[in-house]
Parts: sequence; C-alpha cells; structure tokens
Amino acid sequence: MAGNTFGAVFRVTTWGESHGTAVGATIDGCPPGLFLTPELIQHDLDRRRPGTGGAASPRQEPDRVEILSGIFAGQTTGTPISLAIFNKDAHSKSYDHLKEIFRPGHGDITYLKKYGIRDHRGGGRASARETAARVAAGAVARLLLSKQQITVTAFTVALGGIAITQRDMAAIGQNRLFCPDPEAAAQMEEKIAATRKACDTLGGIVEIVAKNCPAGIGEPVFDKLDGELARALMSIGAVKGVEIGNGFAAAALTGSQNNDPLIPSGFASNRSGGILAGISNGDDIVARVAVKPIPSIAMEQQSIDRDGQPVTIKIGGRHDISAIPRIIPVCEAMVCLTLADHLLRQRAIS
Amino acid sequence: MAGNTFGAVFRVTTWGESHGTAVGATIDGCPPGLFLTPELIQHDLDRRRPGTGGAASPRQEPDRVEILSGIFAGQTTGTPISLAIFNKDAHSKSYDHLKEIFRPGHGDITYLKKYGIRDHRGGGRASARETAARVAAGAVARLLLSKQQITVTAFTVALGGIAITQRDMAAIGQNRLFCPDPEAAAQMEEKIAATRKACDTLGGIVEIVAKNCPAGIGEPVFDKLDGELARALMSIGAVKGVEIGNGFAAAALTGSQNNDPLIPSGFASNRSGGILAGISNGDDIVARVAVKPIPSIAMEQQSIDRDGQPVTIKIGGRHDISAIPRIIPVCEAMVCLTLADHLLRQRAIS
Amino acid sequence: MAGNTFGAVFRVTTWGESHGTAVGATIDGCPPGLFLTPELIQHDLDRRRPGTGGAASPRQEPDRVEILSGIFAGQTTGTPISLAIFNKDAHSKSYDHLKEIFRPGHGDITYLKKYGIRDHRGGGRASARETAARVAAGAVARLLLSKQQITVTAFTVALGGIAITQRDMAAIGQNRLFCPDPEAAAQMEEKIAATRKACDTLGGIVEIVAKNCPAGIGEPVFDKLDGELARALMSIGAVKGVEIGNGFAAAALTGSQNNDPLIPSGFASNRSGGILAGISNGDDIVARVAVKPIPSIAMEQQSIDRDGQPVTIKIGGRHDISAIPRIIPVCEAMVCLTLADHLLRQRAIS
Amino acid sequence: MAGNTFGAVFRVTTWGESHGTAVGATIDGCPPGLFLTPELIQHDLDRRRPGTGGAASPRQEPDRVEILSGIFAGQTTGTPISLAIFNKDAHSKSYDHLKEIFRPGHGDITYLKKYGIRDHRGGGRASARETAARVAAGAVARLLLSKQQITVTAFTVALGGIAITQRDMAAIGQNRLFCPDPEAAAQMEEKIAATRKACDTLGGIVEIVAKNCPAGIGEPVFDKLDGELARALMSIGAVKGVEIGNGFAAAALTGSQNNDPLIPSGFASNRSGGILAGISNGDDIVARVAVKPIPSIAMEQQSIDRDGQPVTIKIGGRHDISAIPRIIPVCEAMVCLTLADHLLRQRAIS
Repeated sequence: MAGNTFGAVFRVTTWGESHGTAVGATIDGCPPGLFLTPELIQHDLDRRRPGTGGAASPRQEPDRVEILSGIFAGQTTGTPISLAIFNKDAHSKSYDHLKEIFRPGHGDITYLKKYGIRDHRGGGRASARETAARVAAGAVARLLLSKQQITVTAFTVALGGIAITQRDMAAIGQNRLFCPDPEAAAQMEEKIAATRKACDTLGGIVEIVAKNCPAGIGEPVFDKLDGELARALMSIGAVKGVEIGNGFAAAALTGSQNNDPLIPSGFASNRSGGILAGISNGDDIVARVAVKPIPSIAMEQQSIDRDGQPVTIKIGGRHDISAIPRIIPVCEAMVCLTLADHLLRQRAIS
Repeated sequence: MAGNTFGAVFRVTTWGESHGTAVGATIDGCPPGLFLTPELIQHDLDRRRPGTGGAASPRQEPDRVEILSGIFAGQTTGTPISLAIFNKDAHSKSYDHLKEIFRPGHGDITYLKKYGIRDHRGGGRASARETAARVAAGAVARLLLSKQQITVTAFTVALGGIAITQRDMAAIGQNRLFCPDPEAAAQMEEKIAATRKACDTLGGIVEIVAKNCPAGIGEPVFDKLDGELARALMSIGAVKGVEIGNGFAAAALTGSQNNDPLIPSGFASNRSGGILAGISNGDDIVARVAVKPIPSIAMEQQSIDRDGQPVTIKIGGRHDISAIPRIIPVCEAMVCLTLADHLLRQRAIS
Repeated sequence: MAGNTFGAVFRVTTWGESHGTAVGATIDGCPPGLFLTPELIQHDLDRRRPGTGGAASPRQEPDRVEILSGIFAGQTTGTPISLAIFNKDAHSKSYDHLKEIFRPGHGDITYLKKYGIRDHRGGGRASARETAARVAAGAVARLLLSKQQITVTAFTVALGGIAITQRDMAAIGQNRLFCPDPEAAAQMEEKIAATRKACDTLGGIVEIVAKNCPAGIGEPVFDKLDGELARALMSIGAVKGVEIGNGFAAAALTGSQNNDPLIPSGFASNRSGGILAGISNGDDIVARVAVKPIPSIAMEQQSIDRDGQPVTIKIGGRHDISAIPRIIPVCEAMVCLTLADHLLRQRAIS
Repeated sequence: MAGNTFGAVFRVTTWGESHGTAVGATIDGCPPGLFLTPELIQHDLDRRRPGTGGAASPRQEPDRVEILSGIFAGQTTGTPISLAIFNKDAHSKSYDHLKEIFRPGHGDITYLKKYGIRDHRGGGRASARETAARVAAGAVARLLLSKQQITVTAFTVALGGIAITQRDMAAIGQNRLFCPDPEAAAQMEEKIAATRKACDTLGGIVEIVAKNCPAGIGEPVFDKLDGELARALMSIGAVKGVEIGNGFAAAALTGSQNNDPLIPSGFASNRSGGILAGISNGDDIVARVAVKPIPSIAMEQQSIDRDGQPVTIKIGGRHDISAIPRIIPVCEAMVCLTLADHLLRQRAIS
C-alpha cells in the first residue's frame, strides 16, 4: 500500500515529481459550501516561494494553482477537489550528472532500492517541490478551520544554533525567516550568509501553534492527536524530530513540575501542549520540529555510484542554505490538514 | 472514525479498559504459517510486568494471554488472531473518589469532553493497561520480523535527568531499568528512591534500535517510515517527543556535519537513523522518545471537579514512579508493529 | 490486506473459526451513549439459532454473547466494543475424514490455495458460524439505527423455486421461514421435507427492506449505497446475486416504465429501491439476494483429495437443507451495519 | 468519509464533473516498472466513445488523456500516476432549464439533499462522464493484469428484452453492441431504432468474463472477491443488479445441480463463476450486471422543482438510448481495477 494519501475523512492525495509535468493534490472529503477561490490557495503558495536572498535560493518558481474540479458557483460541492500546479521552470538537463550518483543525505539510493527505478531529476518525487501540493491542499483545510476561528501559525525558534530569546508574534510577518525575535533573526541572517560562503547548510527548529481548537479532537488509542501531528510533521522531508508541549524537556522534569493544574477557567499552565491522552484539551496546541540542515552542499562529499564505486560529488546550482523559511508554510499546512481531518472525524462518531 | 486500529496490512485493533472484563487485540493480516504459541506472547508480556521494587509499583498483574482464534495445528492460518487478557486484579471501588474529579496530566477531562461519558476506574481506556494488548500483538509482529532476522531492542538512555555515558548492550538485560550503563542505572535507582520519598515522579528518554531491517521499507510521501514510527511511539500515553537519528541535535549542525557519506559497504556513519527520504537505508533504525513523568503523584495538586469547582487532589495507591521501565516493551512492540506492517506493505506494491 | 473488517466509521472486525475457542467481533467507532445490554444482542442471535425441524439442522448451538469491553454504566462509551461467543458444541473429531478432501461448492480448496494451510474442522473460518459474530455486531448497529426510527426487515420471497404471491408483513413472524405468504411457506416446508429425503438441498431468494432511512446516505462515486449493500450482502457465504429495486427486471423495461415520477410528497413509485445515483432518496430501501442451495449434500459427489486424486464424498451429519431461514438475520445484520456506517459517514462530511 | 477512492492497494481516486474543467484519476499503489503510454490508455478510452448511430448519441467527445505524473523513461515509478482528460465540448448553457428541476431517475434530488448544493450541468459529478476516468485508470490496471495473462472481456447478453442465443466470442468485436450473437445484435439495433422513435430508452444485461485469474484471490470474510466485484459493478450509475456464476438462477436449483464437481484437472463445471467462499478458484470469473434503461427520455414526465411544486419535464438533447454499449468498457475497467487490487492484496499477506 503506497502512502501518498493523508487523512481519514479530509483525505488528500498528492502527486507529481519535481521535473515532471505538474504537481498536484486531490482532496476527497471536503465538506460542501466553502467559498474557495484560486486566490485563497495562491496566498499560501506564495508564502512558500523562495525569496531573493538569504537562506532561500534565487530560483524563480511562479507556482500557479488551478482548481480543476469540485467547485460550483464559487463553492465546494462535496465532490473531489483537484488542484494542479504545472511546472514551468524545469531544467532537467542540469541533473544529468547526478543520474548515476547517490547524493548523501538524500533519498536517491533508498528510492532506487525500493522501487528499482528512480526519477533522478531534482529528486523526483522526493523533491521539496512536492510540498507545494501540500501547501495548496493545506489552504483548503485552513479555510475549513477558519469557520471555527482556528488559526495555525508556524515560526522559527532556532536556526544554525541561534535560538530566539523573545516571542513577539507581530514580528513574524516582518522578517523573511518568520522569526518572532527580530534580533535573533538578524543574527540568523548573518549565520546564513557566512554558511553560504562556507559552502555548507544549516538546520533549525520550527514551532507551530494552533489556537481555538476545541477540546475533544483526536482519536485514541492509535490516532491520538499528538501522534497524528507527529506523523504529519515527520512526513516533511527535512524533519527529524517532533515534540509536543514540554517535549524532550519533560524527560528531566518531575510530575509536579510537568503537570498542568486545572482551574475553573481551564488550565493554569500549558506544559502538555494542549493535548491530554491524545485528545485536545481546548488550550493552544503547541508542537516543535527539528529541521535538519539541507543535505545538498556545495562542498565536496564522499559517495558511491550505481555500481557501488566510490566517487566524489559537489552539488552546485540553485540551492537553499536552510529548509527554513520555506518549510514554515509546509508545517502549517500539515497541521491544518491534521486538525481539519480530526475535526471531521470527531463529527462522525459523536 | 475512531482510532483503535494500527497498521494498514498487519492490522491490530486493541480493546478493553483498565477495570473492565478484559483487554485484548484482534490482529488481521498476519501471514499464515507462523508457529505461534501463547508462551511466545507471554514472554513479552512478562517483561512488561511491574517489578517488586524501584520505579514500578508493587501491584501484581498476572497477565495471562489467551489465543481465541487464528491458530490451527500451532500455526497462524491467515485468519484473524484474537488475543485476550482477562482482568483479575480489579479494585474498582478504590477509584470511586475520583469519579467526579479530573486528575491533572491525565485524560480524565478530555475523555469526558470528547465522549460525554467516561469510565473513571483506573483511567478506563486511557489506562496504561491497554498497552498490555499492544505488547501481546507486538509479540506476533516480532515473530514475523524474526523470520528476516530483524531485531528490535529498547533501552533507557536517561531517567530523572541522569543520562547514560556508555552503551554496554549486554548490560540491558542485567538491570531492572533496561539500562546499558550499569553505573547510570544505579544512580537512576537512587533518584527513584529519593523521588518516591518526595511523593513525586520522574521522566526519561528511551532509545529503540532495529537491526537488520532491509533497505526499501517505508511509503512516501505521507507514510514514510520515520513518520509512521513517530506516530506509533507518540501514541504511547507518556511519550511527548520522538526523534530519529541525530534528531533535535541535527538542528544545530551543518549539512557537512549531518550527512552520512556513502561508501561501497554502505554508509560511513548513521546520523540519519537508518532512514532517508522516509525509506529505510539498510542501516540500524534508531529512534528516541521523551517520556514524561507519570502525572499521578502522591502530593497535593490543584484541580477541578465535574462542576468546574476548585478541589485539591492527592493520588494515593500503587503507582509507579516512572513509566520507565514498563514502557520499554511497549516501545519495542510499537516499533515491531510498524516494521511488520511496512514489510508487508512493501510486498504489496513491488 | 486481509478483509475481516467491515465499515469505514462504524467498523466491525469479526474473528473466530467454527471449531475454535470462540467467535467474536470488535466494534470500533460506535458512538457513545447507547444503552446496550447483552440481552439486546442475544435477541438477534437467538433468531439465527437453528430450529428443531424443517430447513435447519437439529444441532444445538446455545450461542451466548459476552460483552468484554466498551460499556460503562450500561452505556457505550465510544471505545471499542468487544463481543465474544464461546464455542461449546465442538465435535471436531467428526471432521477428521474431511481433512484431506475438498467438499464441492465449499471453500476448502480455495482456502488451501490462498493460505497454504486450512482449518478443516467444520469449514474453519469459512463456516456459517462466523455469521454469529456478524449478527451480534449487527444488533449494535440496529440499536444505533433505532434512534432514528430506521427499521430493517428481511424475509423469504422464494425457496426451492416456490415464490410468494402475497406480502402479509404480519405473517413474517408467524412462520419459521420468515415468509410473508403463509400458503407459500407451507409449500416451501413440504419442498424442504421432500428434498431432505432426496438427500439434496435448496436455494431461495430473500428480500430486505429498510424503512425510514433519511435521504442523503451513500457516498458517490465508489461507495454508493447500492454498491455498499451489494458488497455487504454478497459477503455472506451463500449469496450469489444482489439486486436493488427493480433489479434484473429493469433490464427488460423502458425508461418510461422504470423511472419513478417525482411528486410533491416524494415519489409516485419505488422502482429505484430507494436509491438514486448511489444516495438514499428517503423512500424504502429494497434489496433482494439470491441464496444458493447449501453445497453440503447427503448424496455421493465427485471430488479430489489434496493430492489431486479422484474421490467420492458423501457429507453426513447435522446439516441444514437451505441457508434460509438462518440467513435471514444475517442479511438484516449486514444491511444494519451498512446503514449505520453510512449514517455516520454522512455526519463526517456534512 | 467521502467515497471517491477505489481499491485498498491499487488505489484510484477519480475527480471531475461533466461540465467542469476536466475529469481525471489519481492512481496510488501501481507497482513500478510497467511500460505505460498515453496511447495504451487512449485505446480503452476510445472504446467508450459514442458511436455515430444506434444506441449512442451523436455527441462528439474527443477524450484525450494526459499523464501528468508517475512515469519516467516510459515506465511507472511506483509514485502516483495522475491522469487528466480536459473537457472540450461543454455546452453548459443548454442545462440552464434543468437548474431548478429534478430529473426522474437521476441523482439530481439526492445530490441536493446530501450536499445542499449541486452542479446541475449535465449531471455534474453524477454524470456518466466520470466513467471516462474509471476507464483510463482501468487501462493501467489491465496493463498490470496482462503481465499475468489475465484478460477481462465484457459483452452484451441482453438488450431491450432481446437475449442472445449463441456465444461467438469472435463476434464481439464485429458489432457496435459488443454482442457475441450477430443475429441478436441486429434485432437489438432494430429495437433501439424503434425505441428512439418512441422517445424512450432501453435496459439490458452485460456479462463480464475474466480469464487466467490465479486461484487464491479475494479476502474473506468481508472483502470476498464476489462482494468486491459486486460493489465495483454496482458503483456504475446504471447498474441495478449483479450476479456471479449461476447467480439468481441458483435460487431455484438444488445443491446437486449447483455444485461444481472437482476433478483432477480442476472443476467439471463452472456454476460458481470461478469463486468459492469469496476466493478465486482458478476457473473463469463470470459476472453479469443488470443495466437499467437510461432515465433521460424524450417524452414528457412528471416531476417537481426545488420548491416541491409539480412540473412536467421533457429531456431533449443528445442522449443515448441505452447505456449499452458505452457501459461495456466501464464494466471491464471496474473488474480490472478489482482484480489488480486483489492481486496486490494477496501479495501483501502471503
């Protein structure tokens, strides 16, 4: 059973390769009556576009989404919504030298071992380009959530070892790194510039907060909300860790330090990250993900070719220094998709 | 859609409450021809039993598994395997005082908000007792994996803030905490004893390693092996974080520090934790989970009752100081279930 | 992927073999707050019991259902409901002579070819005994439907070539064959008696009617209500055909003869069987199934053994002459399960 | 949970409305290494095209399939295959008079009741045009089956009450009705012509035969091969009944008449239609479907409008007289999709 579908009720299947004809998503299970326009999706897609400097590569990707089905008179009809983004900027020739070589840190070798064939152009299906389809589908999920005033916001809390020391949520929209600490953001940009010169790349940490999620969402015992969020976020290529609320810090705390006292108005603290026993408790849902440094580096690396012979490889071209900030809207999309799906799941059995 | 089923091909549905008649699991999709005995399952179940001292409570739970279906002439037949563990040690009276009160850090309030009704006896469905069914089903998955020489081992790498400083795998079976560092284990036991006196509880970190998993397992783009492991492990009650390979440490590394060079014999390092682009690469699969301190503490806590009125609560009775070590076989079970499922999924589409 | 689970939201997994320890069902996705007792389930199970004469065999099967989980204070809690019926009347010795022989019309050979192993005792998993678990689970579905006044009734419209000529619904409960035509029922009983003497068996046709099903149930384009009913009913061992409304008769009609005119109060006729474009239209849902004659006949038949050598076989023992009437509550159960599942599915996406 | 996905392993999601931008299908779970060209799909699509006379309408539908993903170097890669057929011949204006009226025998009213909104143009999602996507996906399934020499052929056995009296399989390709009896085909054409003049429409019966299907396919107890075929075929708009092997005729036979004796070379007859206990037995798989007369008739009918007021309606335009022959390749597609899915399912658990 292949794994290109996400969600049990609000079900999204993405398709497409980096340098194929198009990438896209088919959404089945979106309720009828939502006012959905291409512009609304485009707005989220544009946030994923590479900027003109800093951590992102200068490559232009004018992603234009088209809605091919599921809309009538401006509204969703309850039938499948097909979204497509046609690829326009495909220089597949530039990947010919990678045809026989496995890039370290990439899925080149595992795709070949799994399928016996691989589309080597730009990573094929394993390319970050696939996440454009996620962001497009996530915009539809976000629209659904907005009917219940649920908001989902991701932001950078660390990059290249530099951690934020303040949380000014208004600042997130005012710097390219979606960082709530303007001073830290400036240091991060310096680090990015230095790392670019060093032909290397950087990792970081992203936090995602969902507000106004009602209590009662999440399906024990295997489809708990925290487990589902973990899967959703870990399915993003660069993510190597996920934690909820106190997360790994909880491992060194005592029960009296980690419990959230209940008070008549709710909870006195939110160490749980808004989830108890896998079910939302009405508080903010808080998750953090560890983003690994982009494996495509412009310095020489040791690798092997298809025949298992040692080779050296140096990856040139237009590559980002960090998956942050482009991963930010992808994290939001995956949380939106998870919450939308579980909101509908809760309806089914209540 | 309720969430009590795990797996797409090797599918396990658990059922049962802490103080109901029984807990159990129904396995659908187990291949025929495996020699399965109750003793084999019992072996794993017994590892989950509470010890007589230290971190675990003195409560006796003589869990006896019964195989109700799916076996003929000692072999699995390809039909559903029904496993049941009847509850014998149920003192439901002792929970009456918790009927109207929500315990901090537990799912009492979220279960009520979700379902409108809850079985308050010992946590009901949210009890750790449910994991006995997981361990029983996991033993069947482990049997399937053993046909391909795949082994799954979990062990303690930190408890109460004390981290291991050496990894002597032979030591794991020689201390009650499944700890590969005997000296650290001794310190952890001291910490447990002191914490018990302080009426508090402890968290920790567990690492799980799967050896001999073939390359090619995992289903991009949403059912990647790392995402599936994250969901599986995060579905365990006490787990608040999951990381693969370098995990959160990768966030502060550069690409050149985090990539695993390919060499003719495989990989020169295993920073990826054995997974590239969501597919196993043939190396050891390595995951770590953050285990929160048990929320049931013997000191007074602030809470509310069903009417939202403030109350104080002090949880007595037979409770563990840490979810470690009893969570160890549960972690193994969830990884076994995930790998068994994905091994079969890979067969389907290749 | 094995196929022992039915339903997408109201999900039932049955398990158990004819002569194993028990048969049972695990229900996941049943909404909380239903008042469910063993007696309620037992009532439906008892309707499936063999009678003391006529078409059914004299074998005694005192099926007693036990509810092992999912109930608290007499109500469903939203957690999995585990039902078990322990086998008491197992004479597995009496099947030893069939160990190496394939019975014509049975799954003996296909089970062996599929799984490489088979439990030959009483048909193993392929036994009609498995349907006891369906009836038990169906009783829970029926309880859910009853909250919306939906009723599901099955009855015999033909047996051994004798068709009913009147429909007196009150008569259904007054004869052993659940037949709405008392005169036809009497003729059917005569035919059964004669066929028993001839060492042969009989087929028939069962009709199922669901009343008060709201419009809007069913999920185009693949999970249409008629398709789902067809699968549900065809999954019963003896069923070889399913039709909805006019069914096969529609093939010889014209559009003007087969269409149902719409009128302000609903529809002027119900040739569609209550389903249009796969969605319930608010009218009675009407399905009919073709029940094949029981393949276990007491006369000599030609067959082969495991080595492919020709043998003759004569099946003695306690066997029914027709799957009717025992199939009647099974048909009802499958329709109840289908409707309950689709009622909940409709909730999820509306 | 919406129902636009078919299959558990070979999973097809169709999307699109009659007069929207496009219709299409996303296939997830197709094994890698199949040589797939647009021409191969086009070949099946062209068989679905309306002819220039007879039962089919003169409307031109130059369906051109495009493969948007999942192919590299002419082969499937194991990643999702996205297929799209852009609509070119959309006269949505011509449907404006139907905006407020429910056509008898169509899903107009049930779609509105279910979703609260409907795309009235040409039936929207409920249009037979959706089946173009099924045929396209079915062509990929057929390619997979052809690797095992499995063939699937559908043909007309009755139309307008005229039944075939001979089965000359070579004749199927030689008349427009895919009829194995040339004389019957001629009579059927006369009946079609007469019915067209009478402003009415016709139903019929289609038989589908799959050859060379290995024994062991199908998943008891709920996903039996016959049940799955029933669902697949009944999900086609015009189908109101499905039978396997002897089907409804079995209801009037005795066990000795209906059983297939086993012989060393296989089975002495094929009354079972190639399926025993829900599992293929290696013989031809034989199914028949009842096709209702097309509900769009050119004579006046009684109906209601959105306000429930009585109206009369007369449906003009380019409509077929019978769903046969255009339903023939759709029946084949659904059987191909079912068999391909179950072939892969069997791999997973064996």
